[in-house]
Amino acid sequence: MVKEISQAVIGRLPRYFRYLGELKDDGVERISSQELSRIMNVTASQIRQDFNNFGGFGQQGYGYNVEYLYTEIGKILGLDKTHHLIIVGAGNLGQALANYMNFERRGFIFTGLFDVNPALYGKNIRGIRVRPMEEMADFVRQNNVDIAVLTIPKTEAEKVASQLTSVGIKAIWNFAHVDLAVPEGVQVENVHLSDSLMRLSYNINRYEAEKERPSGQA
Amino acid sequence: MVKEISQAVIGRLPRYFRYLGELKDDGVERISSQELSRIMNVTASQIRQDFNNFGGFGQQGYGYNVEYLYTEIGKILGLDKTHHLIIVGAGNLGQALANYMNFERRGFIFTGLFDVNPALYGKNIRGIRVRPMEEMADFVRQNNVDIAVLTIPKTEAEKVASQLTSVGIKAIWNFAHVDLAVPEGVQVENVHLSDSLMRLSYNINRYEAEKERPSGQA
Repeated sequence: MVKEISQAVIGRLPRYFRYLGELKDDGVERISSQELSRIMNVTASQIRQDFNNFGGFGQQGYGYNVEYLYTEIGKILGLDKTHHLIIVGAGNLGQALANYMNFERRGFIFTGLFDVNPALYGKNIRGIRVRPMEEMADFVRQNNVDIAVLTIPKTEAEKVASQLTSVGIKAIWNFAHVDLAVPEGVQVENVHLSDSLMRLSYNINRYEAEKERPSGQA
Repeated sequence: MVKEISQAVIGRLPRYFRYLGELKDDGVERISSQELSRIMNVTASQIRQDFNNFGGFGQQGYGYNVEYLYTEIGKILGLDKTHHLIIVGAGNLGQALANYMNFERRGFIFTGLFDVNPALYGKNIRGIRVRPMEEMADFVRQNNVDIAVLTIPKTEAEKVASQLTSVGIKAIWNFAHVDLAVPEGVQVENVHLSDSLMRLSYNINRYEAEKERPSGQA
């Protein structure tokens, strides 16, 4: 059974998963929606509504079983499966992501690293050597790679995305500052860092403007 | 006049800004909401609604003046002002961000880089040397720093955020995998990379499940 869940709900699942993981690590066995609400700073009714999309996860008066809830949300997020990733672009950001061990704990295994810069070929990052871009397509086909991480300039991103989808990549985690056009069925998640920084700038600006308002207008 | 604008609208402004910047660079002078809608893959009515939050930006029948719209949205995002940033955590991710020139084009100037690791002290990244954490508070006070970028482990993030807010930081761009509690008036923008990767994983999972459904149920 596949029920259509809104991307807003999906967007909140990783945060539930993170908090439940911490509760589990702290040895907490059961938690009420009220208590979870207090810790996570969302309303208890929001939590219940979100969980109802997935059948509710157990009786609410008695509280949720933390371990069970953590495991079930992990399954919904597909974290019970192993994913093979390549990183395209072995610059600072690509290397930072390759070095981040926590992704591996969640079943995201980096298997390849590609770059156009010959100076980087053979460089080793956690046992994975940087390969020439020309080897990317074959590597994806031969190594059951399902996710490609793009940490390349936006001028290259469209072309590389198209190469990747032609060899059957399932998903692109896109750090290039451009919206990719991909065939239906290929999942894209954008991390547009500049957009994020601009939102921060907006909120600083707005707060300063509010402060400058004559009092009494608040 | 400060009107309350929803974060959903704010979230879309950087994308408008990005597309308008590209149109401007391509020499496009005027654009209709229909044409912008087609390029950006959102409805024209969404565009008009979003822009109406800011007074509409000019006659719609005649089309928008690209340069004007770009400049005005830039101002709303606070990009007509200069912001001084420090990066706390000079690991791969911190260095990647310090090396990213595009932020500077938008008025975000990196002025300091801090780390707990003495092996990194004095290391130069684009002319900015890595300093010990002990110098952070004084540096923020003396150099008019308004934004701190946290690229440190989550176990340290709360403590460092608290030090930063006590010396008057206005905003935190948080890459640590934790939700920060900050005083009112301090802006926080989170980039939770693991959350983003989990959403991608969810969408892969869901698409596979849909494919496996017997046909006719679609």
